[in-house]
Amino acid sequence: MSTTTTRPYRIDGLQFNNWSEKIFRQMRKGEVDAVHVTIAYHENLREMIHVMEKWNRRFERFPELIFHGRTGDDVRLARDTGRTAIFFGFQNPSPIEDDIGLVEIVHTLGVRFMQLTYNNQSLLATGCYESEDSGITRMGREVIKEMNRVGLVIDMSHSSQRSTLQAAELSGRPIVVSHANPAAWEPARRNKSEAVLRALSESGGMFGFSLYPHHLKNKSDCTLESFCTMVARTAEITGVNCLGIGSDLCQDQPDSVVDWMRAGRYTKGVDFGEGSRTQPGFPAMPVWFRDNRDFANIEIGLRSAGFSLQEVGLIMGENWLRFFDESFGQKSATTTKSDEITSAK
Amino acid sequence: MSTTTTRPYRIDGLQFNNWSEKIFRQMRKGEVDAVHVTIAYHENLREMIHVMEKWNRRFERFPELIFHGRTGDDVRLARDTGRTAIFFGFQNPSPIEDDIGLVEIVHTLGVRFMQLTYNNQSLLATGCYESEDSGITRMGREVIKEMNRVGLVIDMSHSSQRSTLQAAELSGRPIVVSHANPAAWEPARRNKSEAVLRALSESGGMFGFSLYPHHLKNKSDCTLESFCTMVARTAEITGVNCLGIGSDLCQDQPDSVVDWMRAGRYTKGVDFGEGSRTQPGFPAMPVWFRDNRDFANIEIGLRSAGFSLQEVGLIMGENWLRFFDESFGQKSATTTKSDEITSAK
Repeated sequence: MSTTTTRPYRIDGLQFNNWSEKIFRQMRKGEVDAVHVTIAYHENLREMIHVMEKWNRRFERFPELIFHGRTGDDVRLARDTGRTAIFFGFQNPSPIEDDIGLVEIVHTLGVRFMQLTYNNQSLLATGCYESEDSGITRMGREVIKEMNRVGLVIDMSHSSQRSTLQAAELSGRPIVVSHANPAAWEPARRNKSEAVLRALSESGGMFGFSLYPHHLKNKSDCTLESFCTMVARTAEITGVNCLGIGSDLCQDQPDSVVDWMRAGRYTKGVDFGEGSRTQPGFPAMPVWFRDNRDFANIEIGLRSAGFSLQEVGLIMGENWLRFFDESFGQKSATTTKSDEITSAK
Repeated sequence: MSTTTTRPYRIDGLQFNNWSEKIFRQMRKGEVDAVHVTIAYHENLREMIHVMEKWNRRFERFPELIFHGRTGDDVRLARDTGRTAIFFGFQNPSPIEDDIGLVEIVHTLGVRFMQLTYNNQSLLATGCYESEDSGITRMGREVIKEMNRVGLVIDMSHSSQRSTLQAAELSGRPIVVSHANPAAWEPARRNKSEAVLRALSESGGMFGFSLYPHHLKNKSDCTLESFCTMVARTAEITGVNCLGIGSDLCQDQPDSVVDWMRAGRYTKGVDFGEGSRTQPGFPAMPVWFRDNRDFANIEIGLRSAGFSLQEVGLIMGENWLRFFDESFGQKSATTTKSDEITSAK
């Protein structure tokens, strides 16, 4: 079956919810065609596979609501069949352990995004909370080539700036920051400089705007107008074709989960991350983006901020869809970066 | 591209070689379209994945000779492109550990066969070297259903008889003995009774004839005529449609490998398995089946034993190909055994 609706594709570049039938039904109510979901923060291979098994049980239990997405065409299939395609990603390279052979293994298992770091130094690169950014490591250079070969997208959302710019430079295929905002609007440590925005734009990469309050001006009180005006200012720098949404929605999670996200197993103490001792837990979402039902509000806000209908469609999903089409398949190992950049434009 | 040759498909239902370019070139010289290769004897999930990584490197290095096969159509692709499709299988359920969720995970990774036991008792069933055969376990019943659902074939080559007959009965899809011979011809412990042969035949399953000397009459001195006459006698019992080759070729392996195959980690001592204290290592192959170059000899032998050209084609590969077509895809969990047996005929 196919639908004749002219609504734009809706693709969210990152969510990490406490998954339930309720949330899958909210995705359908919000007509969300595809979501990149995090399946690992600090898990090793075996632990990540256990998370994947839980997803397989959800796919088995709710086949009328969700399925495992692997290609851009799966987003079209999701829209045509009234479901949401779930794309897997890691926020840390911990599931590949110290073994480059696991890059192809996890891609075969359907993983499509991997951050090279999550806040701290990893085996591959430097996270945004380290005081020294030593850039892409020896193993990082090898893993970037292998990720390019198999079609596993490099995500630098939680990486520091030098590592991010080096990754964009070293990678033979476009990279992403799936969930963050421009630091010029809100100087959070996780938000990105104009240099990073330009590097993504110039290499055919993608930038997903975050709705996570710690990345917003005035946090939970951020207005839709302020957010959409910020998107418009960003488009003046980058053009509209590299922009999407990466909401970073962490719905229904107990605060114990944010402890795991921030501290993993690296410390016996507490890491408040973007929070603080007085506000250690998950912040409240803005009233205009409670959950998956509210993507239409962003579309209205973007129109008010001056974007055309077509531009709104690009930002809400069509840019991600084009990127999915180009990024998830295998590519010859002999493709050079310069070939790649040319063909991406 | 496609070829116009009329030679029958050649599919081998089991090999476990010390893999090398030499062997892959012998496969091409022997015009072998597909081989089911063992990637685990006693490995846990992580260890099995490491073996899979080594295969990925071989696929990357020799793309003109081999590729990873997942469907019956991949056998046709192999023939049309002059390559050999490699299908993965386990001789033991050790890679799924104690976790039913790993059945779908390993199928997603491209595994297509799994023995429920290897000689000893497993979590699922009883091996052929145990003195007591307690049949399919509680977990075994659950795993059989899950293997049926995802399209992972049950292989009972190293299982004991009661477990084998129960597996055929419990399974909603046809099962196999990928590599063994009839016990009536050679009473080796691994060879199978007429009851097992009939159960496979009646349920649409497959039986692969072994060329491993411990399964042959007169072992390494077995004649081609004796082997092919045995195939003809078997066909009188089972019909020809459930018969194939499962050579059990273990080429170029050091004897240390047969120790691992037999003893794994279950004993600190030595298990001579089908060998003996005086002949602990791999036996020499029959002169008429040295390696992958010699499948044509078997075709000649089968013709001499009275099989028609068409029947030879079925035994050498077309039966396996039909079985691959029917067995590797997902099937509704609600399919009942009786539906299945009907549709398989």
